[in-house]
Amino acid sequence: MIIRGDTVINKVPEGTAKTDISELLHRRITTNLLTEDKFGSDVVVAGYIKRIKIISSNLAFIVLADQYGEVQLTFKSESFKNIKDIQNLTRHSFIAALGTLIKGYAKSGREIEVNALQLLTDKPAEPLPIELEHVNTGLEKRLDYRWLDLRDQKHRLPLVILARTVARFREFLANENFVEIFTPKFTGNPAESGAEVFTLEYFGKKAYLAQSPQFYKQMAVCSGFEKVFEIAPVFRANPSFTSRHDTEFTSFDLEFAYITSHYDVMALEEKMLNYTIKAVIKDFADEIKQLTKTELKPPENIPRIKMEDAYSIVSKQNITPDGDLTPEGEKELAKYIKTKTGNEFVFITDYPFSARPFYHMLGEPMSNGTPTTKSFDLIYRGVEITTGAQREHNYDRLLENVKAKGLNQKNLQFYLDFFRYGAPPHGGLGFGLTRLVTQMLELGNVREATFLPRDPKRLTP
Amino acid sequence: MIIRGDTVINKVPEGTAKTDISELLHRRITTNLLTEDKFGSDVVVAGYIKRIKIISSNLAFIVLADQYGEVQLTFKSESFKNIKDIQNLTRHSFIAALGTLIKGYAKSGREIEVNALQLLTDKPAEPLPIELEHVNTGLEKRLDYRWLDLRDQKHRLPLVILARTVARFREFLANENFVEIFTPKFTGNPAESGAEVFTLEYFGKKAYLAQSPQFYKQMAVCSGFEKVFEIAPVFRANPSFTSRHDTEFTSFDLEFAYITSHYDVMALEEKMLNYTIKAVIKDFADEIKQLTKTELKPPENIPRIKMEDAYSIVSKQNITPDGDLTPEGEKELAKYIKTKTGNEFVFITDYPFSARPFYHMLGEPMSNGTPTTKSFDLIYRGVEITTGAQREHNYDRLLENVKAKGLNQKNLQFYLDFFRYGAPPHGGLGFGLTRLVTQMLELGNVREATFLPRDPKRLTP
Repeated sequence: MIIRGDTVINKVPEGTAKTDISELLHRRITTNLLTEDKFGSDVVVAGYIKRIKIISSNLAFIVLADQYGEVQLTFKSESFKNIKDIQNLTRHSFIAALGTLIKGYAKSGREIEVNALQLLTDKPAEPLPIELEHVNTGLEKRLDYRWLDLRDQKHRLPLVILARTVARFREFLANENFVEIFTPKFTGNPAESGAEVFTLEYFGKKAYLAQSPQFYKQMAVCSGFEKVFEIAPVFRANPSFTSRHDTEFTSFDLEFAYITSHYDVMALEEKMLNYTIKAVIKDFADEIKQLTKTELKPPENIPRIKMEDAYSIVSKQNITPDGDLTPEGEKELAKYIKTKTGNEFVFITDYPFSARPFYHMLGEPMSNGTPTTKSFDLIYRGVEITTGAQREHNYDRLLENVKAKGLNQKNLQFYLDFFRYGAPPHGGLGFGLTRLVTQMLELGNVREATFLPRDPKRLTP
Repeated sequence: MIIRGDTVINKVPEGTAKTDISELLHRRITTNLLTEDKFGSDVVVAGYIKRIKIISSNLAFIVLADQYGEVQLTFKSESFKNIKDIQNLTRHSFIAALGTLIKGYAKSGREIEVNALQLLTDKPAEPLPIELEHVNTGLEKRLDYRWLDLRDQKHRLPLVILARTVARFREFLANENFVEIFTPKFTGNPAESGAEVFTLEYFGKKAYLAQSPQFYKQMAVCSGFEKVFEIAPVFRANPSFTSRHDTEFTSFDLEFAYITSHYDVMALEEKMLNYTIKAVIKDFADEIKQLTKTELKPPENIPRIKMEDAYSIVSKQNITPDGDLTPEGEKELAKYIKTKTGNEFVFITDYPFSARPFYHMLGEPMSNGTPTTKSFDLIYRGVEITTGAQREHNYDRLLENVKAKGLNQKNLQFYLDFFRYGAPPHGGLGFGLTRLVTQMLELGNVREATFLPRDPKRLTP
């Protein structure tokens, strides 16, 4: 279906098939570039129809949206002949329009007086199966039709900000000489605990999906790479439904050599988050203000508290039997720190060995003798967003840790072998990207920052 | 085990525990920074021992390697007391050394006269289980001990260059306003063909591992993202062992809207490869020369040949029954083009529909009436490195293609639905990163550019 004003013929450039305005797409500009200096010029825009209003046989309006914003298209009978054909169009149909950019009467201070319009599909869009931008359209319904849900600029924005956050992280890491690695997601051994791991048939054997690149990033460091990072999917067969968990998510992991303690890792993380969040605030100043109630601030001078000291702040019921904090305990401590220092971030350090994996290096025991690890978590606005540690890089000590945890050495031997032929002291951290961005933008649910979330019930779209 | 020269005590900075040189790691510099302006200064280096030579009780040498290169450590009895202790060290042990950088007699024109040395592990490295840098150590053996294999700078280099190649690609795409997406690897439906897909148990259902982000990147474009890309693992249950295949690899995928044909996608790819390869040549001028026989050149004016015309160039036995070229046919055509034009790249375009997936848009039929697609492959040095196309974005036509291919509509309905509520014209491409880098660096086998390759027999380390 082509809707065409007569005057288009004069506007089509030399050599372009006159019956195919889609050739004009090469001249297309995005709505953010419809600036005042182009007033009076011919422009081509393309996008989808947000609203249509036919006033009379002489006047009609379309609000066209693209990734960057919206623009009003105005149809007047003197410049566009077949205004009645516009009623054949539907909301969310994708179109291209050629016309003159003018100041006009639209609230945005710019509109396009259209000379030619083309539907970019054979038929107009079918009626939408969900009400977009409607408060009563729940998250599950929105996720069922995620490709329509994301036509709402508000819902697309967290994904755009997440992408930029990642780019800024990589920029920081490149400046620090980190090398990006791509570790395998198939592994021949279940993870340390064997719990919550996805298993699959693999050419007559069993394979497991990596729950984290932990072992492989440490291997990279043992290989002679001094600083490595990876941003890639990880898989957790977690049967729970919470606002913080998915069965797969994009994990940010880094590991680096020649550290002297976990404090080096914490210092790097603070510097990295400061750099990245500062840059993201600059990149999206207006958008973030619209999205969030609380001002987004880069972390500085993050308070550090040893777990031993946290125990005397957090209520007993918020401490687990193995000496960790429950999510409520983390919230409680974060609130205490916020009140005391004003900081939305807090590092909890020196977790007891009982609450940490076998590969965390042992540190100074607590005053009651409880063995601790050179480890930390970072809490941001009451939610744990990072786990990090110095790793044990001595084969014999690792073996002792494996035994102390009652783990099966055979399953871990492939990993333990990395430390037999020389290994540098090293440490690192890992976090879920969506969880960080969820906290930064106060989204309340990691799925708002996930393109297509996966949970125990959701495998589509 | 600490080996220590007496003079160290004077050199340890104020406030540092005198018995722990590892504190000095904070002062560590990498070997590439041991420049002439530091001659006469105290420096701390760390890395692993490549060679040890004890000349006498008064003189010994160690060649220390880090990620960036090597440096000779010289031990003289006047500045380092316990030279005999050095014989307790072993090759590949990780150490830190404090000493004075001097011009010295080493071939590199710099060495360090060591005052203090510390082994960074409890015990020296065990004897290595493989001969590194030995031509008789085959690839499989090397991969069994990949973390040791990669201590060879030559073997690590392709991974470093691959990482930079990715960074340069992203830089180009950021300039072109592409948004990075993170698509799910779990899918509820097998891929279009159902062949070579990994299946797993997923909370009482079946899930499949994504063979490509094809459907999801198209969904992103239907969502209102105009240009998207993803660099992430994909999974193929391919039982074959070839130098070109792995069961998982890092795929580079992009997709963008408002194109007018597959030629727009090809133009973008040429521009992107030109930008990226040019930048990589600049970043690694010397290294690439050492690694490759043929000069690495960025693509320009890539010749384009329609499949219909390729048929009259390529031998009959190198054309498959469905009208594709065999790998030998691609080599044959590439050779022809190289001879004719000197170009190492060639785009083959307009593949017959029989040789392409259902979602490629139909184009002009061949002169004998064979239906073709608006599609292309890019051949580089005789190997196919990219597949791309304009996609069919009209629901009814997609359905016709599904039927023409005899595919199960039910399995594809979730994808087909993306095109019912409006969709822009769009196209894109995908390629395996390791395959591109393998061709760029003439590695001969994608595994040389893969950190930890996975094939039907290999799931470790």
